[in-house]
Amino acid sequence: MTDETETTAPDSVARDSHEHLSRDFVRTVLDLVEAGDVEAVREKVEPLHPADIADLVELTPAEQRQPLAAAIAGLIDGDVLAEMNDWVRDELIEALDPHEVADIAAELDTDDAVAIIEDMEEEDQRAVLRALDPDDRAAIEEALSYPEESAGRLMQRELIAVPEHWTVGDVLDYLRGEEELATDFWEIFVVDPGHKPVGTCALSWILRTPRSVAMGDVMKREQTLIPVGMDQEEVALIFQKYALISAAVIDDSGRLVGMITVDDVVHIISEEAGEDALLLSGAGEGDINEPVVDSYKVRVRWLIANLGTAMVAATIIGMFEGTIVKMVTLAALMPIVAGVGGNAGTQTMAVTVRALATNQLTQSNTMRAIRREIKVALLNGVTIAAVLGSGVGLVFQNPLLGGVIATAMLANIVIAGCAGVLVPLTLARFRADPAVASSVFVTMTTDSMGFLVFLGLASASGLTG
Amino acid sequence: MTDETETTAPDSVARDSHEHLSRDFVRTVLDLVEAGDVEAVREKVEPLHPADIADLVELTPAEQRQPLAAAIAGLIDGDVLAEMNDWVRDELIEALDPHEVADIAAELDTDDAVAIIEDMEEEDQRAVLRALDPDDRAAIEEALSYPEESAGRLMQRELIAVPEHWTVGDVLDYLRGEEELATDFWEIFVVDPGHKPVGTCALSWILRTPRSVAMGDVMKREQTLIPVGMDQEEVALIFQKYALISAAVIDDSGRLVGMITVDDVVHIISEEAGEDALLLSGAGEGDINEPVVDSYKVRVRWLIANLGTAMVAATIIGMFEGTIVKMVTLAALMPIVAGVGGNAGTQTMAVTVRALATNQLTQSNTMRAIRREIKVALLNGVTIAAVLGSGVGLVFQNPLLGGVIATAMLANIVIAGCAGVLVPLTLARFRADPAVASSVFVTMTTDSMGFLVFLGLASASGLTG
Repeated sequence: MTDETETTAPDSVARDSHEHLSRDFVRTVLDLVEAGDVEAVREKVEPLHPADIADLVELTPAEQRQPLAAAIAGLIDGDVLAEMNDWVRDELIEALDPHEVADIAAELDTDDAVAIIEDMEEEDQRAVLRALDPDDRAAIEEALSYPEESAGRLMQRELIAVPEHWTVGDVLDYLRGEEELATDFWEIFVVDPGHKPVGTCALSWILRTPRSVAMGDVMKREQTLIPVGMDQEEVALIFQKYALISAAVIDDSGRLVGMITVDDVVHIISEEAGEDALLLSGAGEGDINEPVVDSYKVRVRWLIANLGTAMVAATIIGMFEGTIVKMVTLAALMPIVAGVGGNAGTQTMAVTVRALATNQLTQSNTMRAIRREIKVALLNGVTIAAVLGSGVGLVFQNPLLGGVIATAMLANIVIAGCAGVLVPLTLARFRADPAVASSVFVTMTTDSMGFLVFLGLASASGLTG
Repeated sequence: MTDETETTAPDSVARDSHEHLSRDFVRTVLDLVEAGDVEAVREKVEPLHPADIADLVELTPAEQRQPLAAAIAGLIDGDVLAEMNDWVRDELIEALDPHEVADIAAELDTDDAVAIIEDMEEEDQRAVLRALDPDDRAAIEEALSYPEESAGRLMQRELIAVPEHWTVGDVLDYLRGEEELATDFWEIFVVDPGHKPVGTCALSWILRTPRSVAMGDVMKREQTLIPVGMDQEEVALIFQKYALISAAVIDDSGRLVGMITVDDVVHIISEEAGEDALLLSGAGEGDINEPVVDSYKVRVRWLIANLGTAMVAATIIGMFEGTIVKMVTLAALMPIVAGVGGNAGTQTMAVTVRALATNQLTQSNTMRAIRREIKVALLNGVTIAAVLGSGVGLVFQNPLLGGVIATAMLANIVIAGCAGVLVPLTLARFRADPAVASSVFVTMTTDSMGFLVFLGLASASGLTG
């Protein structure tokens, strides 16, 4: 409900064609910060959208962030912090006094306030909570009492709930009379005397209905209710599946305790969907703002696991040293069998992990998915085996060698297809995140089996005499 | 605006705890289909949400889909089709008569109608368009004139736009009087006489404002406008960044031509974020409903590319056959150096691709990101090299061999870190999708360099005499 006369087109100098801040703009601002020209800095930054101010701070090198933050103090409000990368935000907040953090948190909806406070050290968190007024403190403390990444953390308590017997006119009068309302809401919840939801009403229906009609006659009785303890990933999938704009959150006794809106869910959808590529590679959260040491700790653990699986493969090769000595060409060719097999396994694994993450792969269609992947693997295997086998046979003028590598390649691609679908499915069955551990097992299988089948066949076929 | 008396809690038998259809439910329905008990099938399926009916069809094996579709004819309406997986939907639609498709399309918003029609064969598409009434046909033909995956395809033309001088009362009267309105909308656009957007007004603001106030005083003048030709991925990023519920779409002359709502964007956010893992593995769209032959075509191309890079690595090994013959243990150890290096490269690559996709990595912070990855690589490299080098030195009672493999491992992890960040950045600079081709180049680098450095050092160090 603002009537500022901002221009319709956002500041075109600040953004490049891809809707992110241009390099020149960032550089200009940082030069002004360095020159100590606080007024010019504020003039540049003030017209930006909170999300762009957050981006500006993120794009600023770590050592210049505090001077920038000092120059634009007051412009970094709750909305800006809510948009900011976790790592960068925590760094800024650590530099603030608990009272300043409390002032920022007080002006936000519960969910955004919680997002800012939940990652603080416990001691700092307590200091901030003490500095809040009792109502805000109670709301935030309650939210913090729910598990991390649950609907209770995600919801805001600010919402509109009205009794069923109210008319549309009653609702309009109530809304026009209330000063202290959640600023943005998209539906009105209808509740019974026990504050349990009985229906929901999109604002557009209210706008189109005469004042005299009762809410009970406008509302839709079927609605998707989110239990307060539900994991945020499941909340995101439900919002996506039922195309929700907002949804009521209920406690264990079915009472309405909060509301989740789609804008709070959108970044979770994106994070959860995007993290598969990172998890599959063992890069953890993979945030480029994460401190180097944290990235190192996550990644090195994974590399050590991979070192272990590589040792298994090396041991298998070691068993065939006699064969390799007789025909050293095998040493040059064996990584092809293992590598291409590894790639085929990764493909199947990526498809399976994604299908599991989007609830497309359930117990009802598991067998079908396995058969499907084996068919694809057979087609791929025959093609690659034919190309590789005939190539090797011709180049080395050795049809038997060509036959051995073709057979090994086909076998390893089929093994890879099976591992690529069975490993994630098994992990999911045991309630482990298939994105986290699948690649270690799949790669170990394709490497070991690739070497074993190829060298084993070479030895058994009499190729090496 | 429904007043059906459906229960608040959705049919608990149909769904399991994870909000997808239970295996028992799917099996029961399919058994009833097989038994030909159409009435019982419809009784089971009718209470389901359209998204759940879509899921049911997807979870049904291909050969039973047509009998199921026949049994629940009429229940598979536009809303169900709009929720359905592309492959499954196309299969169902192919079995329908153009007039039936036209009937379904006519009841949908433009964006959903376009989604159903755009993938049809051109001839069938023309037949459906002919069967539509002229208004619907014009709207859909216009939408189809915009490039695929652009805002023009995504938008709906149904929206509410009012002049600035109207009062809130005028808007309420207008909305209450109109029969033919977009059923769900979340903001009202204010336009000038040339139909150019001048402001926007969330419905909650209108509800809270007295009838006499002019729209020009309620609306917010700053709004994010989406050009009709903008790529859907960018649309999704903008919705995410500015937490939008809906946004106005404008044509080249700045006139309001449509509206995009967040529920149409949510699945794009999820798809675009989730596809990185699939693209990095070369699995294409990676949809488990894709026909086997299509999956084969996409994946085999990638495997052949990987076969090529594996040949490069094999050639490098071939250059060192003399060295390997002298010390065959090298053949067993060399895949460790290449494999762990490949993993380190994949980690950095996944992080870089994700940062590029979320606009977190821009020209402003490229150099910082590169330095950061090199630091992480050095830490990882030193750790892994120490573990591997001392292990190999001890096991083989050969400190020189330990030193050689440690040095090669450190070098390859640092090379992997550089390749993992530079390859995606270079591809992005040339406007190629970094997720599509990065792994081929990164793997080729880590494999080739791993073998080259390890075998080269082994040869040069005098290890093999």
